[in-house]
Amino acid sequence: MTDKSTIVYTLTDEAPSLATCSLLPIVRTFTRAAGIEVTISDISLAGRILSAFPERLKEEQRVVDGLAELGKLTQDPHANIVKLPNISASVPQLRACIAELQGQGYDVPDYVDAPKTDAEKDARERYSKILGSAVNPVLRQGNSDRRAPAAVKAYARKYPHSMGAWSKASRTHADYMTGGDFFSSEQSITSEKAQDVRIEFVSKSGQVELKKTLPLEQGEVLDSMFMSSKALRAFFEQTLEDSKNTGVMWSLHVKATMMKVSHPIVFGHAVSVYYKDLFDKHGELFKELGVNPNNGLSSVYDKIKSLPDSKQEEILHDLHACYENRPEMAMVDSVKGITNLHIPSDVIVDASMPAMIRNSGQMWGRDGKQKDTKAVMPESTYARIYQEVINFCKTNGAFDPTTMGSVSNVGLMAMKAEEYGSHDKTFEMTEDGTMRVVDADGNVLMQHEVEKGDIWRACQTKDAAIRDWVKLAVTRARNSDTPAVFWLDEERAHDNELRKKVEAYLQEHDLEGLDIRIMSYNEAIRFSMERMKRGKDTISVTGNVLRDYLTDLFPIMELGTSAKMLSIVPMLAGGGMYETGAGGSAPKHVQQLMEENHLRWDSLGEFLALAVSLEELGIKEHNSRAKVLAKCLDKATEKLLENGKSPSRKTGELDNRGSHFYLGLYWAQEVAAQTEDAELAAEFAPFAKALSDNEEQILAELAAVQGKPAAEVEGYYHADREGVKKVMRPSATLNGILASANA
Amino acid sequence: MTDKSTIVYTLTDEAPSLATCSLLPIVRTFTRAAGIEVTISDISLAGRILSAFPERLKEEQRVVDGLAELGKLTQDPHANIVKLPNISASVPQLRACIAELQGQGYDVPDYVDAPKTDAEKDARERYSKILGSAVNPVLRQGNSDRRAPAAVKAYARKYPHSMGAWSKASRTHADYMTGGDFFSSEQSITSEKAQDVRIEFVSKSGQVELKKTLPLEQGEVLDSMFMSSKALRAFFEQTLEDSKNTGVMWSLHVKATMMKVSHPIVFGHAVSVYYKDLFDKHGELFKELGVNPNNGLSSVYDKIKSLPDSKQEEILHDLHACYENRPEMAMVDSVKGITNLHIPSDVIVDASMPAMIRNSGQMWGRDGKQKDTKAVMPESTYARIYQEVINFCKTNGAFDPTTMGSVSNVGLMAMKAEEYGSHDKTFEMTEDGTMRVVDADGNVLMQHEVEKGDIWRACQTKDAAIRDWVKLAVTRARNSDTPAVFWLDEERAHDNELRKKVEAYLQEHDLEGLDIRIMSYNEAIRFSMERMKRGKDTISVTGNVLRDYLTDLFPIMELGTSAKMLSIVPMLAGGGMYETGAGGSAPKHVQQLMEENHLRWDSLGEFLALAVSLEELGIKEHNSRAKVLAKCLDKATEKLLENGKSPSRKTGELDNRGSHFYLGLYWAQEVAAQTEDAELAAEFAPFAKALSDNEEQILAELAAVQGKPAAEVEGYYHADREGVKKVMRPSATLNGILASANA
Repeated sequence: MTDKSTIVYTLTDEAPSLATCSLLPIVRTFTRAAGIEVTISDISLAGRILSAFPERLKEEQRVVDGLAELGKLTQDPHANIVKLPNISASVPQLRACIAELQGQGYDVPDYVDAPKTDAEKDARERYSKILGSAVNPVLRQGNSDRRAPAAVKAYARKYPHSMGAWSKASRTHADYMTGGDFFSSEQSITSEKAQDVRIEFVSKSGQVELKKTLPLEQGEVLDSMFMSSKALRAFFEQTLEDSKNTGVMWSLHVKATMMKVSHPIVFGHAVSVYYKDLFDKHGELFKELGVNPNNGLSSVYDKIKSLPDSKQEEILHDLHACYENRPEMAMVDSVKGITNLHIPSDVIVDASMPAMIRNSGQMWGRDGKQKDTKAVMPESTYARIYQEVINFCKTNGAFDPTTMGSVSNVGLMAMKAEEYGSHDKTFEMTEDGTMRVVDADGNVLMQHEVEKGDIWRACQTKDAAIRDWVKLAVTRARNSDTPAVFWLDEERAHDNELRKKVEAYLQEHDLEGLDIRIMSYNEAIRFSMERMKRGKDTISVTGNVLRDYLTDLFPIMELGTSAKMLSIVPMLAGGGMYETGAGGSAPKHVQQLMEENHLRWDSLGEFLALAVSLEELGIKEHNSRAKVLAKCLDKATEKLLENGKSPSRKTGELDNRGSHFYLGLYWAQEVAAQTEDAELAAEFAPFAKALSDNEEQILAELAAVQGKPAAEVEGYYHADREGVKKVMRPSATLNGILASANA
Repeated sequence: MTDKSTIVYTLTDEAPSLATCSLLPIVRTFTRAAGIEVTISDISLAGRILSAFPERLKEEQRVVDGLAELGKLTQDPHANIVKLPNISASVPQLRACIAELQGQGYDVPDYVDAPKTDAEKDARERYSKILGSAVNPVLRQGNSDRRAPAAVKAYARKYPHSMGAWSKASRTHADYMTGGDFFSSEQSITSEKAQDVRIEFVSKSGQVELKKTLPLEQGEVLDSMFMSSKALRAFFEQTLEDSKNTGVMWSLHVKATMMKVSHPIVFGHAVSVYYKDLFDKHGELFKELGVNPNNGLSSVYDKIKSLPDSKQEEILHDLHACYENRPEMAMVDSVKGITNLHIPSDVIVDASMPAMIRNSGQMWGRDGKQKDTKAVMPESTYARIYQEVINFCKTNGAFDPTTMGSVSNVGLMAMKAEEYGSHDKTFEMTEDGTMRVVDADGNVLMQHEVEKGDIWRACQTKDAAIRDWVKLAVTRARNSDTPAVFWLDEERAHDNELRKKVEAYLQEHDLEGLDIRIMSYNEAIRFSMERMKRGKDTISVTGNVLRDYLTDLFPIMELGTSAKMLSIVPMLAGGGMYETGAGGSAPKHVQQLMEENHLRWDSLGEFLALAVSLEELGIKEHNSRAKVLAKCLDKATEKLLENGKSPSRKTGELDNRGSHFYLGLYWAQEVAAQTEDAELAAEFAPFAKALSDNEEQILAELAAVQGKPAAEVEGYYHADREGVKKVMRPSATLNGILASANA
């Protein structure tokens, strides 16, 4: 149980966590006046690792399991959580964090690829819960409501971000499987009663292996599907040959972080097909060394370090020889020679595709030049929409941020809906046979013939989540007076099950005057884009994966970033979570801070989320001061945008810390100027004056530290908090004003 | 008034007219038995010219005006016309035909570009009625019903034509204006009463010039629109620069034949923009010489012949220099160096675009190699659909003739509907000012500000035609149990007027169980293609231009040619016209015949049309033998396809004449074998036997003539009929059997 007047603010990783150190003291100065406490919950990668191994740590090293506590809080109707972006750790990231913690004297175990001892297996099991997108599934106990705040949209129209022109002659295209993938094999049922079903594997010899028992609720939708590894590998080979023949650069776009079980395998196949000659020749040796293509080519570089120099050279020679017979590949960092296949977490489809689309449909080649690309996204379920966008841009030219409409999203996210909850029901086949879902009476509900290497998975979607999603869609359509389109594909078994429910649950609402439609994906995105081009808004009402993809795609085109979106999770239990943008945790920002003491992270998402958090708290807990603070914060944010006080990317100019100062200044001025609560206004007048009077001095102090390395920040994943504080709060004058305001 | 048992068979031009000479004697052998006379009506280009100048010809040289007579016949409820493809003459074709006739001793006048004397003006006026698509507007006194006959579709699925693969990396695209064209300026009104309106030009100084008085019927839709010549020229320049920059070959696709007033002007701008340096330097001289870019670059070549050699060389040098600064241009004949801009009638959009699409989206370059192309179609109204098709092919690959569904068409064609009736209401502006449409009371119904050089036009669509079109659509949807889509674009003023009528007239019919929709063009073509890809049929219900475009586009993809389509015009007056394919009159076929005495023209369209003609005559005139003949003819056609007895393209193999023999043989065998009319069967048994017994001999005689020039054919446009007969009926044995059967 939480106090009714508490906002829980998450401490995460990288740039957002650094920014928090600067922003929170300012925020608390305001919330204190409304009797609201802003508490911190550590859900950083390092924190999660430490809390997983209490028995190995000294008493003083132990930390509480912030994520578990927050998870409980989501069930509280009073929950009010402001959630910042965190790391969805890939294996290399996890390893780096473990190494850092070990170096700091924490006795956490290694992450072992092929655990043998019980201890290793136990550690591996605990780490598996930390890997990938481990935070969101725990916290997102509701559906998703994402939209561009009016102030942000207006600002983007007035001061448009850069948008690369599209050539009608562009060769860029999406390429995806047309058979053998999850889309082609999807089956779906709706459970008519609460029941336990079994996922079983039946071998060719008839042996039945229980893979998992699943409790299903009444009305729950269960899907099963598989991707053929043979078809996948043949597809990769074919895309490589086509790229080679047409001279179009090859690139791979998956989501190995969120789809942490299936997509690393898909990624691994891409690596071992692209570098086929290398793996053919050195396969045995690689196996001995523990090279895992699922971790990217970096795994080869890592593991061969133990070999004699001459052998290493031979392998590197063979590796480079692969490039001769393969098409040019898109680079993540052409300066450092980091390719698309280096690490599975580098290229994440929902961010990489919009970036490509914004960039004239081009990615970077080995020579550092922009080039048209074949964007390979094996699974065709959602990949098709990107081809539709590409076709649209070729036909109509790039979207124009100054005139384009907005596509907001109502996403089916609650209760680990759909693919994003499938990790514990995803299996890589170790032999040929049949995967099947069987009920208690032995009836086979669904089954697939599979082969060794195929990836089979089941996905669940709870009836309560669907019902709430439909309700949220109707509410959003009503409140925003905007057409809402349910994206349900006629060719998907799962969507056809959902369609029945959607049609039924829509009848529970007053639809008078609303424009609510159901369309297949390609129709829906085309419809939305046609409207968008004409400056009209549309609500996309989608499943969980499209929620994720679209809330990057459209915001990046509209606003240049998805970090400026309002992202609200109205929880099923009644509470609310306010996410601060989907912009990732920005490792490059940290790098710049470390080297030049400039943090370009934009906390706009935090400002917007905090305003909604305060507004909701004000409404639910009848806290009028919270409402006043919310209103003033929104006005302050608008002023900040209008006056150009967002962080600059360039060292030496205003950065995250300076932007926080201006937010505090404008917010205080708004509170002092408002007339709803005269007492509050009076209270904040001197604070506003102090900030205003000392503007020059504070800016000078903030500017003075820039340009040199931020030496005090020790540690990347688990930085010393005191060091961070020194770096992130360098203005003695500002610190003094805050201290006296809170005295 | 026609006899109730007469089929009027048109004598046209080029290959169809040659084929007629061979086919009709066979056909008449059958129809005679049903008391049906097949008469000939000469509507050839030469015939039309000769009939236009009776006063200049000797008594024995005079011919009746076949077209005028046929025009009258269309108003007869008993009309039954089989219409073969004819020449829609461009100016160069008209000139060539005039020269030929003059050479044969006919005193027809020259076609003068800039007529000065009254006689010249009179001749020019008469020729203007012969130019371009002069036949169809007279004969097509009804809407259009076009579809692939079941036998043809089944055959195409079993024996698919070749279809070039599409690369996802293709650079091919459609390019069209996004402003300043007819689409952008279209205005439309529906006349509430019968009234005369005036089309007027108001000069900048206020002078009003009456351009035309138009009588409007009650409920008639009148549109007006213009294309800005400045915008058009800027657009051409921009497409040329873009092609140059991207390295994508440039091509122009217009319809200078059918749109005989506006499109030659558009074509002329393309010529003078592409060869801008040439026209800039020699413009004055060209004007003196009478060079007209609207007739293509051939006009330059023609007119400079009168100049001294050195001057000619200078001009040719400057002409060739243009290619340095311009992108590569698509070739009509790369061997002969004939470019896309040589003659306006060479590249006709409705045939050239499907050919390109079938050919992997490529056209031929100067080096004779296939290349991706920028397909420039300035007017965006209909050009947009081609980009949609291109996107679809890039995304899904080429259509597969073995599995694809069919898109038939119900076209609004009656009473010179829409753009195709606009020629006498199209004006090229000679000064800046205002074009307006004014009613009797002086109310301005529509108006446009125009500049010198702009092309302004008005289009009429009669209410009766629309009402009949809606009825035909419902009938076809019902009879074929196929969804029908009205293509009405929400962004077109004209279509929005039509939409109101369509919605009203649909209510006059029983729509129970029918799937009838209204969609914008891009939606409609996408919907149709998605269905097509899945093997499903759709009826496209379109305006006149789309009728023309789509009945080439879809048939060419489905069947490899539009010549195999059933093309029926149920006339408003009650009669019927049966067109034999839209495959053009095939000049290349004639060339092959002249050089190698092989005619590859496929009379399949004639067979199919004749069967429907006989069937309709049978129903209307209660002629049961006509019905039997129709049924047997369809079966014979199926057998012919199945047995591969269509003409080969290769000299030495079965050609048009041999194919006619087989049709006669199979038809006779079917009639002899049928049991509905025993007497008829008995009558045809010996005929069938005679043909069958002499198969080898006849084939040998037909084969013997091939490989040498067909010297007896004297004349191209106005060939000596006796000479044609010698060439087209070379089998003495077959001639003998026909003679005895008709004795």
